[in-house]
Amino acid sequence: MDPARAAALLDFLALADRLKTVERRGLVPLPGGGARRENSAEHCWNLALIAVLLHREVAAEIDLGHALSLIAVHDLVEIEAGDTYAYDPAGRATQAERETAAAAIVFGALPVDLGRTLRALWEEFEAGATPEARFAMGCDRMQGFLQNVLSDGAAWRAHGVTRADTAPRMDPAMAVDPAFATLIGALYGRARAGGMLPE
Amino acid sequence: MDPARAAALLDFLALADRLKTVERRGLVPLPGGGARRENSAEHCWNLALIAVLLHREVAAEIDLGHALSLIAVHDLVEIEAGDTYAYDPAGRATQAERETAAAAIVFGALPVDLGRTLRALWEEFEAGATPEARFAMGCDRMQGFLQNVLSDGAAWRAHGVTRADTAPRMDPAMAVDPAFATLIGALYGRARAGGMLPE
Repeated sequence: MDPARAAALLDFLALADRLKTVERRGLVPLPGGGARRENSAEHCWNLALIAVLLHREVAAEIDLGHALSLIAVHDLVEIEAGDTYAYDPAGRATQAERETAAAAIVFGALPVDLGRTLRALWEEFEAGATPEARFAMGCDRMQGFLQNVLSDGAAWRAHGVTRADTAPRMDPAMAVDPAFATLIGALYGRARAGGMLPE
Repeated sequence: MDPARAAALLDFLALADRLKTVERRGLVPLPGGGARRENSAEHCWNLALIAVLLHREVAAEIDLGHALSLIAVHDLVEIEAGDTYAYDPAGRATQAERETAAAAIVFGALPVDLGRTLRALWEEFEAGATPEARFAMGCDRMQGFLQNVLSDGAAWRAHGVTRADTAPRMDPAMAVDPAFATLIGALYGRARAGGMLPE
């Protein structure tokens, strides 16, 4: 590796570090009680762990390296665009435009070949047309739902989210594979039993 | 997936969530200034991103799915054993024993087949004998060093770490591949230029 390429990679990693300071609405329970907001970097690790656990539980043949690559890069645009809450219609309306502008900055900070590779991974995740992109989407939505269940539905409650509100996000995730349907169905059961998510 | 397996996976994920509350010594710079300690979950995401960027920069043929699986699970034992600082000899002396006890708890919380798979990944990472384990180790050590450089060497200073102290950790990482040697060499250069790491 030539020194200019090494320097560019290290500068990109300094930028990417900021994903650890992008806060999501979901909460992480703390050992001593209480909770704090989850950040997008730890969310990405959580998806990777779910993908490792589930890739052989689904019917589709999943290229795990490809799925985990999609997962590692899928939220990088949030460094510039911030996290957009699933249940924020105003934020959702401008999300695509903001994230496309962010992609030019974030992936443009890499050496050209790697910038193209990572941008293609992000676009593939967003398009959701390949088995790996659909699998990663299932992991992503299941993780967000799980995080709410782990924190007693506090973020749902704070934003007045109902079970009906979650359907447009969770139905496609349940449709990825019967394994996701079973897992997400079980999470709905826990949310209902805990009175976390009104009808 | 049968309901009992789904319930066991969700219970394991509730346990695994605690990796987000295991604090490392390295610091994450905050947008408004200042810094906070990095947690092990976001550290794992950071390694995954580095692995995606570097797997084609090294001479060895790396199975990326395998390397990213090692990375996703390599710190799970810290949920029970905590993070052991690289420059804490007393902690290092008991680390293997504490982590082996932790592995029984953490991987024992999974369905037997998945517990065996994840435990084998953790053991492979620890043994460092396969190309993917060596590559993941290089990513791990480079990330820890980078985190110190990004936070102006504050954790090094707080613990009186010298350049000589870092050699036993960083020399094996630089030996993984010339790409790691170049990147870590560049990081040493930045640390020196910033006066972060006394000789």
